[in-house]
Amino acid sequence: MKDVRIIEIKESVFADNDRQAEALRSSLKEKGVFLLNLMSSPGSGKTTTLTGTIAALKDSLRIGVMEADIDSDVDAKTIAETGAKTVQLHTGGMCHLDAEMTRQGLDALGIDDVDLAILENVGNLVCPAEFDTGAVMNVMILSVPEGHDKPLKYPLMFEVCDAVLINKIDVLPYFDFDMELVKEYIHMRNPKADIFPISAKTGEGMGEWTEWLSRQAAEWKCK
Amino acid sequence: MKDVRIIEIKESVFADNDRQAEALRSSLKEKGVFLLNLMSSPGSGKTTTLTGTIAALKDSLRIGVMEADIDSDVDAKTIAETGAKTVQLHTGGMCHLDAEMTRQGLDALGIDDVDLAILENVGNLVCPAEFDTGAVMNVMILSVPEGHDKPLKYPLMFEVCDAVLINKIDVLPYFDFDMELVKEYIHMRNPKADIFPISAKTGEGMGEWTEWLSRQAAEWKCK
Repeated sequence: MKDVRIIEIKESVFADNDRQAEALRSSLKEKGVFLLNLMSSPGSGKTTTLTGTIAALKDSLRIGVMEADIDSDVDAKTIAETGAKTVQLHTGGMCHLDAEMTRQGLDALGIDDVDLAILENVGNLVCPAEFDTGAVMNVMILSVPEGHDKPLKYPLMFEVCDAVLINKIDVLPYFDFDMELVKEYIHMRNPKADIFPISAKTGEGMGEWTEWLSRQAAEWKCK
Repeated sequence: MKDVRIIEIKESVFADNDRQAEALRSSLKEKGVFLLNLMSSPGSGKTTTLTGTIAALKDSLRIGVMEADIDSDVDAKTIAETGAKTVQLHTGGMCHLDAEMTRQGLDALGIDDVDLAILENVGNLVCPAEFDTGAVMNVMILSVPEGHDKPLKYPLMFEVCDAVLINKIDVLPYFDFDMELVKEYIHMRNPKADIFPISAKTGEGMGEWTEWLSRQAAEWKCK
């Protein structure tokens, strides 16, 4: 491989989001609500994964979902069909949600009767990783067609996530995707990340993932 | 389908990027350099498409490529293998490139011996669409596994692009992707957008796309 020149170009933005996120997390702790922040690229299967997750857990947990999108409400309509309480959040073009925006969403959703609140963040591997939403845990989905090199290119997203779901394993035969290599890359970014290969479409692997999530929510309530 | 409540949450950021973009475009016009800004989600196949595009056009055009990524240089190495002049731009965590960042990249690349300069933007359907890079044309790639609903969710990206490449058509049989519907959605956002279904992997459809690009570059030079 040839060497290529690397030019560092940079710009930075700051805010006092971290304090608001901690305050939100404390208030969720008091209420016994587990907030999950679900992130991924566009089209990696967040909504389908969420549909299967709700189906598996709805008898044991009261679930509320916030669907964040720049435009449209197609995902929220799909989620509402599962019977889970759902609101659509439009970000007005914003590429991510911060803690204050998440708080607005939770207020709109209403969480007095919710055990597990899920934020489906804007489809984006960059910006959402930079902002603590106040969630108890971050989980991301990487889908097989996106390729196993993504942890190399989007380091922060993999660093901030407690678990990585590798979705669309039903199409593994049609893509050059190296499952062992992707696990190695993910653990290079984040040695503690739990990894769950799944197919939200066929249901394969969904049991391990939903058991993990259920256990995290129970532990949070008892802490 | 059930109706769901929609909550508008908003925050905005502004800059004087537009003037810098116009200045860059004027200077490119003087030099006879066609700058293409290539955008997409992570993993939709920008680098593979670019490799095929360079192979098709390198005998008739002198090509220079800027690979923008948050981290890693795997794509720039792949592109450099084609023989095209290549630089890797690291954005320091930034989710997009603006005109000033693009100018820095072009300076580093050196364009006195270039007819067609290509910026492979950060993999992201949101932020790159908001910033005029100074490019003569914007082109985006939507890949089949991402789904046909993306023009509904990421309107601005489709509005600002002159052409949309629909990549990975070789895996159409394995996904619920409606080609006619996606064309309808794209034209709803942008009636003038040219659409090219391609498989960068097999080469299918690449001829129509590279002929279109070659024609645009020639027309820009003669304007």
